[in-house]
Amino acid sequence: MNTPKVVIIEGSPRRYGNSTKLAFIAEKGAKDMGCLTEIIWISDYEIKPCIGCVSDDIMACKYPCVIRDDFNKIAEKLISSDGIILSTPIYWYMVPGHVKILLDRMTSLENMLLHNGKSLLDGKVAAFIATGNDAGTSTTISYLMDVFNSYGCHIPAWALAYHHSYEDVLNNGPAVIDSYNIGINVCRLSKILKEERDPWYTFNVDFDELRKYTESEISKLKMSPLEERVARANGGK
Amino acid sequence: MNTPKVVIIEGSPRRYGNSTKLAFIAEKGAKDMGCLTEIIWISDYEIKPCIGCVSDDIMACKYPCVIRDDFNKIAEKLISSDGIILSTPIYWYMVPGHVKILLDRMTSLENMLLHNGKSLLDGKVAAFIATGNDAGTSTTISYLMDVFNSYGCHIPAWALAYHHSYEDVLNNGPAVIDSYNIGINVCRLSKILKEERDPWYTFNVDFDELRKYTESEISKLKMSPLEERVARANGGK
Amino acid sequence: MNTPKVVIIEGSPRRYGNSTKLAFIAEKGAKDMGCLTEIIWISDYEIKPCIGCVSDDIMACKYPCVIRDDFNKIAEKLISSDGIILSTPIYWYMVPGHVKILLDRMTSLENMLLHNGKSLLDGKVAAFIATGNDAGTSTTISYLMDVFNSYGCHIPAWALAYHHSYEDVLNNGPAVIDSYNIGINVCRLSKILKEERDPWYTFNVDFDELRKYTESEISKLKMSPLEERVARANGGK
Amino acid sequence: MNTPKVVIIEGSPRRYGNSTKLAFIAEKGAKDMGCLTEIIWISDYEIKPCIGCVSDDIMACKYPCVIRDDFNKIAEKLISSDGIILSTPIYWYMVPGHVKILLDRMTSLENMLLHNGKSLLDGKVAAFIATGNDAGTSTTISYLMDVFNSYGCHIPAWALAYHHSYEDVLNNGPAVIDSYNIGINVCRLSKILKEERDPWYTFNVDFDELRKYTESEISKLKMSPLEERVARANGGK
Repeated sequence: MNTPKVVIIEGSPRRYGNSTKLAFIAEKGAKDMGCLTEIIWISDYEIKPCIGCVSDDIMACKYPCVIRDDFNKIAEKLISSDGIILSTPIYWYMVPGHVKILLDRMTSLENMLLHNGKSLLDGKVAAFIATGNDAGTSTTISYLMDVFNSYGCHIPAWALAYHHSYEDVLNNGPAVIDSYNIGINVCRLSKILKEERDPWYTFNVDFDELRKYTESEISKLKMSPLEERVARANGGK
Repeated sequence: MNTPKVVIIEGSPRRYGNSTKLAFIAEKGAKDMGCLTEIIWISDYEIKPCIGCVSDDIMACKYPCVIRDDFNKIAEKLISSDGIILSTPIYWYMVPGHVKILLDRMTSLENMLLHNGKSLLDGKVAAFIATGNDAGTSTTISYLMDVFNSYGCHIPAWALAYHHSYEDVLNNGPAVIDSYNIGINVCRLSKILKEERDPWYTFNVDFDELRKYTESEISKLKMSPLEERVARANGGK
Repeated sequence: MNTPKVVIIEGSPRRYGNSTKLAFIAEKGAKDMGCLTEIIWISDYEIKPCIGCVSDDIMACKYPCVIRDDFNKIAEKLISSDGIILSTPIYWYMVPGHVKILLDRMTSLENMLLHNGKSLLDGKVAAFIATGNDAGTSTTISYLMDVFNSYGCHIPAWALAYHHSYEDVLNNGPAVIDSYNIGINVCRLSKILKEERDPWYTFNVDFDELRKYTESEISKLKMSPLEERVARANGGK
Repeated sequence: MNTPKVVIIEGSPRRYGNSTKLAFIAEKGAKDMGCLTEIIWISDYEIKPCIGCVSDDIMACKYPCVIRDDFNKIAEKLISSDGIILSTPIYWYMVPGHVKILLDRMTSLENMLLHNGKSLLDGKVAAFIATGNDAGTSTTISYLMDVFNSYGCHIPAWALAYHHSYEDVLNNGPAVIDSYNIGINVCRLSKILKEERDPWYTFNVDFDELRKYTESEISKLKMSPLEERVARANGGK
């Protein structure tokens, strides 16, 4: 089996801050677990804003993206990876605008589902680190989980680490240990899934059969209408 | 290998509505993929509100929960499952209060991490269906991903299905197909992970070594201070 | 002018914790600004889960709610108030289930918009305090802003205070000062708006005229199609 | 009294789509209510990413921003406005990256609170329109409410409008009427608050007195410890 590769995307323009520190710790976890790793420093790349082709024509968006800049270079690294860890600073409770632009542009990878039947991020393993001086960690992380899962990525157990303070994150034990676990788990699940090549999304569904099946199951429930539900609520437990 | 079991939690007090329909479709996907299934109808159980023991003493919260009601019965089913699919209606952009109470009480399962080194939900595979008449699907699903991942659950690729309309969801092709994929993927990943018994969270981390490693890596970056970053922003690319 | 009244809803079953402390501080701000105040301790009331009548028939939900319990008592206090401050603990990044049940049941107040042309919460001034031992403050507060604004409430400037730590919030200067400002601002805006009795939502809109107006404005823009937008993106700035 | 001015920020690079249509409708509402209006087309401006000065030194961030681009031109318009309506498309359940960059850069306006005791957005009235082909409306709107309130803006009643469909929003009655109400309400509240010049945030707080007051109030509650709360939960209501 060839060794899985984990890419760590570092979202901060500052490379001495807390998100960078936790990115290194997650990378260490992935290396200790036996994966290859590479850090992508977003601020080294020019990535222009998405222009929303998909809203003009859903099939207009595909990889490679029509915009000429550095996005496709990052995309190549993501496509050839098995796992992705995004470590981001928090600006106003959320990823910074330049990180959001990367997420927007990654539509061109996901939308290949419609062109080829498989997202170019399908089946990859993703996890998230968010650090800020103040609130916003769960807003950011829940958001990233939703987006990467919508790209077709798996999210392994305990795939989150965060820090919400001006203080040095290296003094925050749980954040450090969680980040190390992120590296471990992204690598561990990437190894387990390495040989799973079939797409994780299927269009091969008998829609009419599913409708009939469901209507039949619902009818068996013989559920009471609203009036009985009100009576039940008022009649005690 | 024994057959994995997928539990579907249905959150609606109405059992003829859209969340119930998609719950059946996800169940069908899991059965077609070869898993055992069981639907838990939350509204059949009395579950009292969490009283926040963990804020008095973080070790006070453990399984079984001290509150005497039906929670521990549901918990037994969750503990013995390999996969969990939560299908919930949306009330004000979020899970209803009675579903949130179940999530609150599940703290007693997760907190066993501190007692025994392993969350009682560690390594299970979880996915989510949210239906409402109006907005709130992504708010609900991103939230549920964050919570179940924090319990220690894996989230497989394409683990979300939703519907935001008064209309019958059985006329919403993508929602039906997504729900079927949820059933397939929760079962598929549950099978792959069936023999993975080691906890997915480790406390076995050399904290001091990680700090030193990280400080060393950061120092190698020789990153420019703020002044140079401003100059770079203003000097073009 | 009669004195505005500010109701503070305290969501914690524990009345010695951080959300209670900040509730008192916000109350003090409102009193110092010249408002009447009352604290509602949610855990003193029995509030059963919402049974979703509105999904069976949108006109079935109205005030008073058909479920017999203590909800209508709290509702009376809310209806007669000018300002509402909700102080809540955070359970899994969000309001606890029993607080969410109150929000769900308040649908019966908001839905009077459809019965009488005015939400029973229309024009009230609302603000939010969220405290927890860990993450979730912005998830909780952004959520509450969306819900209360959807009830028809105004949200005054600086209407948020939070704390994400096990430590005593009385040592967290910004959280204390923010909470005091919440009291001040809810009272200040309540006074300013005291004589504004017209509903803040109007159905008196000429829909067809608005459509024509908008189509005319859009046509004047003579916007370029997708191809030109791609060219512009690639032509540099 | 001079006439209040409402600025509408349009976030889409496409100017024939749904967010633009609702922007025009909101503008019409504001004009009909008697306000001056101006639409700002974000995509006409070059706005570079925020470089996070505030994380190096909280006092380093101030208005005007040190980055040389078009941001300060937009900022001037915002500063001289009384109301702000942001109409944005939804990319992956959230504002697009280029809109987020504007929000990030607006830190320089808010942070004047620390320099001069008043945010440059203090007391302005803000509301939000979000349109997309799919999910994400409540995620986007709740987020924007939290951010603009954190800048120091008021959010008037019914300050949200949204659309989650590929179809022409001019066929979506509620979205059109809600958008018109947004224009009405931003203008109405802007007029009411026109002469309110005192900052809406005060640092003039006796912190020690508040602590003593709160500790005294808490002690009067004589709240039961955890054991009694458990007994109460188990003893029925």
